[in-house]
Amino acid sequence: MEQKFRVDLNSDLGESFGGYKMGSDDKIIPLVSSANVACGYHAADPVVMSKTITLVKEAGSAIGAHPGFPDLMGFGRRNMSLSFEEAKAYVLYQVAALGGMCQAQGVKLQHVKPHGALYNMAAKDYELSKAICEAVKEYDEEIIILALSGSETVKAAKDLGLKVALEVFADRGYEEDGSLVARSKVGAFIHDETEAVDRVVRMIRENKVTAVTGKDINIQADSICVHGDGENALLFVEKIRQRLIAEGIEICPLRQL
Amino acid sequence: MEQKFRVDLNSDLGESFGGYKMGSDDKIIPLVSSANVACGYHAADPVVMSKTITLVKEAGSAIGAHPGFPDLMGFGRRNMSLSFEEAKAYVLYQVAALGGMCQAQGVKLQHVKPHGALYNMAAKDYELSKAICEAVKEYDEEIIILALSGSETVKAAKDLGLKVALEVFADRGYEEDGSLVARSKVGAFIHDETEAVDRVVRMIRENKVTAVTGKDINIQADSICVHGDGENALLFVEKIRQRLIAEGIEICPLRQL
Amino acid sequence: MEQKFRVDLNSDLGESFGGYKMGSDDKIIPLVSSANVACGYHAADPVVMSKTITLVKEAGSAIGAHPGFPDLMGFGRRNMSLSFEEAKAYVLYQVAALGGMCQAQGVKLQHVKPHGALYNMAAKDYELSKAICEAVKEYDEEIIILALSGSETVKAAKDLGLKVALEVFADRGYEEDGSLVARSKVGAFIHDETEAVDRVVRMIRENKVTAVTGKDINIQADSICVHGDGENALLFVEKIRQRLIAEGIEICPLRQL
Amino acid sequence: MEQKFRVDLNSDLGESFGGYKMGSDDKIIPLVSSANVACGYHAADPVVMSKTITLVKEAGSAIGAHPGFPDLMGFGRRNMSLSFEEAKAYVLYQVAALGGMCQAQGVKLQHVKPHGALYNMAAKDYELSKAICEAVKEYDEEIIILALSGSETVKAAKDLGLKVALEVFADRGYEEDGSLVARSKVGAFIHDETEAVDRVVRMIRENKVTAVTGKDINIQADSICVHGDGENALLFVEKIRQRLIAEGIEICPLRQL
Repeated sequence: MEQKFRVDLNSDLGESFGGYKMGSDDKIIPLVSSANVACGYHAADPVVMSKTITLVKEAGSAIGAHPGFPDLMGFGRRNMSLSFEEAKAYVLYQVAALGGMCQAQGVKLQHVKPHGALYNMAAKDYELSKAICEAVKEYDEEIIILALSGSETVKAAKDLGLKVALEVFADRGYEEDGSLVARSKVGAFIHDETEAVDRVVRMIRENKVTAVTGKDINIQADSICVHGDGENALLFVEKIRQRLIAEGIEICPLRQL
Repeated sequence: MEQKFRVDLNSDLGESFGGYKMGSDDKIIPLVSSANVACGYHAADPVVMSKTITLVKEAGSAIGAHPGFPDLMGFGRRNMSLSFEEAKAYVLYQVAALGGMCQAQGVKLQHVKPHGALYNMAAKDYELSKAICEAVKEYDEEIIILALSGSETVKAAKDLGLKVALEVFADRGYEEDGSLVARSKVGAFIHDETEAVDRVVRMIRENKVTAVTGKDINIQADSICVHGDGENALLFVEKIRQRLIAEGIEICPLRQL
Repeated sequence: MEQKFRVDLNSDLGESFGGYKMGSDDKIIPLVSSANVACGYHAADPVVMSKTITLVKEAGSAIGAHPGFPDLMGFGRRNMSLSFEEAKAYVLYQVAALGGMCQAQGVKLQHVKPHGALYNMAAKDYELSKAICEAVKEYDEEIIILALSGSETVKAAKDLGLKVALEVFADRGYEEDGSLVARSKVGAFIHDETEAVDRVVRMIRENKVTAVTGKDINIQADSICVHGDGENALLFVEKIRQRLIAEGIEICPLRQL
Repeated sequence: MEQKFRVDLNSDLGESFGGYKMGSDDKIIPLVSSANVACGYHAADPVVMSKTITLVKEAGSAIGAHPGFPDLMGFGRRNMSLSFEEAKAYVLYQVAALGGMCQAQGVKLQHVKPHGALYNMAAKDYELSKAICEAVKEYDEEIIILALSGSETVKAAKDLGLKVALEVFADRGYEEDGSLVARSKVGAFIHDETEAVDRVVRMIRENKVTAVTGKDINIQADSICVHGDGENALLFVEKIRQRLIAEGIEICPLRQL
């Protein structure tokens, strides 16, 4: 009997703020199975959050919280040194706010994925990851942590007994240890779209990817991160979707993996 | 058989922010039965909120959300013109954030009391009150609305089928229609502490208070608002408590009324 | 000898914030003679302000500060009740910040135009206008106040001895008393572009405009407010410019009027 | 002929925000010769800034800007990774805002001292220091940079041709290279007040201090940083002042050194 392959497509959404519009949420939402929704710290305000939940709910996709640093001016992309207590409380606040707004619309929060600099710092920092995961666990231990494959966040989530989904990037190169090639290095990005899609398909079917050194490494791909900004990004998501479907790989939310 | 009288004592708490300390929470919390906790908009940050929930939980008091305008610089005390959609979403965000942080500590949110200018504007504005109450109802219809006795907020909460508790002020004068005497008018404040306590006891036992005109009016007193800032305020709370106990009036949280 | 007619074209600019882009500043700046630059309260951050000053300087246009309410989430478009002291200090802070950043680039601040809800509230509120004008006067009494023709802001500025330039709107209807027809009323907007341009030319050449009642009223038009958002807005600015030039009306900054 | 010794006493002030009060500005201002005034990013709002300028002006002390990170929730005490462009623009914005508010009260800005984490990060980071100093230079090249004795900030300021004043701490230990002993290490703090004052006097008269290793090192002390929070801090400032006066050391603002 043939093995059934499944993967989740996730995207960062709901990042508009007040009079400022960001992204093409209405176009990207129908194309993904899991939506990471900003929670009012690095982006979004309550009106945006409420509307985004409605859009995702109508599209039938799953919802996750996308908590970030309290740095709207830097869009959460700048490293900040938070104490364990601060990191935990800030994540809990944001997850609770979005979770409760979902509850008000009859939707259950599926996952939490840290945003931007918080995601990147946590990937290399077990204590920061633990602060994030403790917040999630205390709020609702059924929530799935969506984290970089091979990161400290994965370790911390597992140590706390939380479910973890592993995220991979179609357009990024990997080191032999499974970490992403730094953006400043050669091989950081996969510019050829067909190659990028080929790599994703292989990650899903074979659990393997060719590292920047040329060596094949093991990788687990539960979810692929796609971008929704700009026409090219949307075309690329369409391309990935078509290829996954052609390969018989089912696109479904994290909770169905 | 003698009738059993009960009343709630509520106070605004958890209003510190980052490096800024406000109020004497550790001293006032053991003296009240219901704590109104700021939610990060007009005051408080997630670390403060988390610590305040712990303090209130340890004291065995009940917790309510105290959502305000997004105006930290004005401490939520300045009128702002929000649309219905904005008011509803801002309240839902704050209530959900605090509610989820309570849930993380195994505590159930008892009530919601709007803060400052939001409270005062809503008291006279049915639509604004409705926005607040719809947010609360969609989040959790068991939550009690704590509102000014005789206000539009009471009407809106009742129309939506929410439980309402009526708040009275020991140190304020009342007009014949049950509204508070404007702060700029003669009779706005009851300066004599004994008189203030006498009035409160009569509101509870007889459901009556003498209006600024000298005429007795009907009033329902489910909860008395007390202040926790400064030594005098704390002494006054002690005085009210002793008198209520002496009168055989039980002090208990809103949910036990 | 023929009379020489002159008018200023002003536009609101520099309203991006962090990762959020707003407006087409690079396209509108070369088309206007005076740029109203946001100051970090209702919109803009210091990086945006610095870049905007450079763009305006390179285009040879004049710069003005565009202070607003401390309400980024509402883009300064929501009424807020500030005390006199608060309004004055907030305006001074913003004007000083932009003025000093201009000074760092060797540019002199030409004017101040309040933004959004602050502009509209001040137009009807002499005390609020006075707070704004006192702030400007104490900072630099050479700065020109750009205010709605016929508003309380004009009166307050004149009473304080400040220079005032009168702003008119090409696309808005006027009441007989010179105020704008409320947005909710019939006749609030002039939808026909040719009619709008005709009206502007008449305001400049004859100091007259036809009110919504059909009666001609006197009006002084020192500066025309144009919008820079979207392709249509830019086309309309081009249309006004061409017509003004064809009519022999010189477009020049406020300080040259 | 006897040599005349002089030193400046500086303190961080004007750190209240909206309804939040911090510090005892009215008590510390008369005791120092230079006041570092917060500029609205890590602390302070325009009303606080305006009042603080008035207080300092009335006391006859000199005023400096105390720019910090845009992190009110963390009081500017948490490291943030800013780009060179961001750091420069943020400092310029804050210095310009305070400088212009001083100008409105007829006061000239004397110095700039970075606050908290910005001060500490810049002390070890030449590029960050350069961003700060470029901002100050472009705003007004007469402004004095107040920086940690021996820091990268001193180097950057000198390289840009700015005047620099060197700050020392009465209550901190020094390493042999002139840097402060890290707070986590033994010898970080001088707990004995008399010893602390003795050390300060020796720094001023002999330009020497005993490092934590026991070895004497050279140090230049233009300004002593004192704290104004709490009764003990104020008593210590009094103690330092009395001793300096007894030693014939004149206390005067940086610009008179």
